[in-house]
Amino acid sequence: MNKGLEDIVVAQTKLSRVDGDNGTLIFCGYDIRELARFATFEDAAYLLWHNELPTRAQLTALKQQLADARGLPDVVLRVLRDLPRDTAPMDALRTGVSALGAGSQLARPNLAQAIALTAQVPLIVAAFDRMRRGREPLAPRADLDHAANYLYLLSGTAPTSTQNRALNTYLVLLADHGLNASTFAARVVASTLSDLHSSIVAAIGALKGPLHGGAPSRVLDMLDAIGAPANAETWIRAALARKERLMGFGHRMYKTADPRAEILRELACATCAPEFFARAQMVEETGLRILRAQKPGERLYTNVEFYSAAVLNAVGLPRDLFTATFAVSRMAGWTAHVLEQVADNRIIRPDAEYVGRAPSSVISLDNQ
Amino acid sequence: MNKGLEDIVVAQTKLSRVDGDNGTLIFCGYDIRELARFATFEDAAYLLWHNELPTRAQLTALKQQLADARGLPDVVLRVLRDLPRDTAPMDALRTGVSALGAGSQLARPNLAQAIALTAQVPLIVAAFDRMRRGREPLAPRADLDHAANYLYLLSGTAPTSTQNRALNTYLVLLADHGLNASTFAARVVASTLSDLHSSIVAAIGALKGPLHGGAPSRVLDMLDAIGAPANAETWIRAALARKERLMGFGHRMYKTADPRAEILRELACATCAPEFFARAQMVEETGLRILRAQKPGERLYTNVEFYSAAVLNAVGLPRDLFTATFAVSRMAGWTAHVLEQVADNRIIRPDAEYVGRAPSSVISLDNQ
Repeated sequence: MNKGLEDIVVAQTKLSRVDGDNGTLIFCGYDIRELARFATFEDAAYLLWHNELPTRAQLTALKQQLADARGLPDVVLRVLRDLPRDTAPMDALRTGVSALGAGSQLARPNLAQAIALTAQVPLIVAAFDRMRRGREPLAPRADLDHAANYLYLLSGTAPTSTQNRALNTYLVLLADHGLNASTFAARVVASTLSDLHSSIVAAIGALKGPLHGGAPSRVLDMLDAIGAPANAETWIRAALARKERLMGFGHRMYKTADPRAEILRELACATCAPEFFARAQMVEETGLRILRAQKPGERLYTNVEFYSAAVLNAVGLPRDLFTATFAVSRMAGWTAHVLEQVADNRIIRPDAEYVGRAPSSVISLDNQ
Repeated sequence: MNKGLEDIVVAQTKLSRVDGDNGTLIFCGYDIRELARFATFEDAAYLLWHNELPTRAQLTALKQQLADARGLPDVVLRVLRDLPRDTAPMDALRTGVSALGAGSQLARPNLAQAIALTAQVPLIVAAFDRMRRGREPLAPRADLDHAANYLYLLSGTAPTSTQNRALNTYLVLLADHGLNASTFAARVVASTLSDLHSSIVAAIGALKGPLHGGAPSRVLDMLDAIGAPANAETWIRAALARKERLMGFGHRMYKTADPRAEILRELACATCAPEFFARAQMVEETGLRILRAQKPGERLYTNVEFYSAAVLNAVGLPRDLFTATFAVSRMAGWTAHVLEQVADNRIIRPDAEYVGRAPSSVISLDNQ
């Protein structure tokens, strides 16, 4: 039995390669460190959808397609308005994408749908965020790129170029990561030849889980609770003594530093308030020192969530939108994987070992 | 690579054992043929949730719990009312369950939630069906069992005892079936420690796919198109010549007769109009004769969908609710699998073989 399906190869992919032993992540041949330096979210999405980087003309065309798709049918806005204001944003996003898929005929997932849905997901997140704060959703701005438009729709103000670049880098870094649980859930659904919306709804539900994308805001909660760098050691030792998990430490796939975490650390340094970054760094160093002393054999590093939280906080996102913003990024990878799945499909149906009671053909009378 | 994950054991389960070589299906030790003879849906659900059949007192208690949970929050009714009337019922169900999960705190899936959601799924299907026909949803009836209440909510009339027994048998037969794609999708989502609603929403999306649960109504479309038993041979040969798949024939898991199909055939014989049953039988016999002659090596049988369609039609269900009714049944298995997954969890994250372009560290200037 292999409960986690570790090392079980279920697909060939042209999309990304996670090399946890060497700490590298490749998107369609390009090292994530390289992409993070120059690519916008649109570049990364084009790369994942087409397996090559866009020319200038192709990038312009994609930006236009995304801008043209920035709209939500009334039904989606009505559904979002119906939800209780204290709905978790991931639940609102899951319900909004499901409603968006309602009323359309069952169709084989295609690139046009992938582009449209990628353009619409940030609109759903932002519309719900405005509504829960008693405000009306804003009209999208075609002159802004994907990242900037998202921040604009949330705040009503176009972001600074520093904020825009920081969010773009975040959106590039998180856009794909092999067959993580949400991507795999999307592919399992797609393997029945269901529709794109059903696949993405499944992925959103999986990303919500605290073992996957549901935890980044808890890093911030931890940094808040620690308060000052000087408190880090005492706080961390007490938390570990209570058998609590330290948020943002460790990743199943990486036995060395996660390259995304390293880029996000630099980005956090450039974008966060100095006091905040100093505290985060102190917590990272202290946490790693203590954990490594407790488990000398393990190679332990902070993961992508640790500095994601700092960066998303610095660009002005409320912490309960962090996971939904992860979804805004991962839409590129999820949709690319769904397209890859249906291009050469086989229904995904693993086996289980039956360990229940032995078959009995006699049902006792008491049970009748 | 194993694209379908055939024979890859991802879980130990006490729930069901599919033995496709011998044509047996076991739920928690009980042969499905035996269960079909006496069990109601409530018996089967109790069996899957507790791994043993209920005593009379336990069954009464479960019936009461299910009846008590028969209610939908206003938000779900509002959301269903918002959807376009031509929304596919599976899309309405997916959106309704997602809305039902909105506003509740992230919680570890538990049995009380499983019972409540199982009680609510037929209410969502029936409420949407009434609304799309311009009618108001009916109030559930606590004096009716799960199957009868579902039929009542759809039609406004309590079913005959023959209809009620037929639907109960259908709901028992379809309640679980190993790690099929929808159940597996639910377990993948649950493995991130996401919530029950997210898992079930994923399962609904997978069940919708035509390779999984999305096809039973097409069996009826085929029987309609054939029209009279005498037309079967000509129609089938023409369809196969056009390279069309015959609906309701073949199943990846069964190399002999699917026991559920055999029980459903008997049930169809007992419940369908004689002319209709004769036509279905003629299509089955003719289809199998022609297919077996074309592929002499293959052991081919009609699958569970073939006579499901006839039975669901006979109990008065509109054909575009067949897949949603499959979901009403499979709720027992889906929820039982989610509970089993989280009781001994590991995040499900398979591997992929990277076959994309070779890593290149140089990004050409044209792409900048």
